[in-house]
Amino acid sequence: MNRFTVEVLVTPRPGLLDPQGKAIHHALASLGYDSVEDVRVGRAIYLDIEAGSAAEATERVEDACRKLLANPVTEDFRVTAAEPACGAVR
Amino acid sequence: MNRFTVEVLVTPRPGLLDPQGKAIHHALASLGYDSVEDVRVGRAIYLDIEAGSAAEATERVEDACRKLLANPVTEDFRVTAAEPACGAVR
Repeated sequence: MNRFTVEVLVTPRPGLLDPQGKAIHHALASLGYDSVEDVRVGRAIYLDIEAGSAAEATERVEDACRKLLANPVTEDFRVTAAEPACGAVR
Repeated sequence: MNRFTVEVLVTPRPGLLDPQGKAIHHALASLGYDSVEDVRVGRAIYLDIEAGSAAEATERVEDACRKLLANPVTEDFRVTAAEPACGAVR
């Protein structure tokens, strides 16, 4: 078994209210960053997981996203390529 | 000016307490995901920004990270390659 680090990006679905993004947008505008046109805020989750292959790690994490990590009604998620954590072959 | 979408990933510094990550780790374990060894949770922030080039957009967002988006004491941030939002050349 190898150890993989899997990145999960959970973002609010387009069109849904994102009050945290709005708050950051206003704060940036008041600091003078007026070229910013939109801000959306989600979660970045990093999981270290033991699995036989990157594909297996990704599949398991996608399953966990559907059950726990993301709200399927209001959020999208993207699980990006798992990569072996260095020196962690066991 | 073009419109770029810039991705900012803000993560807790290694070694610092991450209670949200711990909570997710425990919840995953209780759902049977016992191959997960560690979980860290940060923020994924997407900014649509008007700029002359991707490099200019990235630079402006890195500056905003230092001033507002990340806490330099407890968090690291990564600004990934800005890419032009489709059909938004003006």
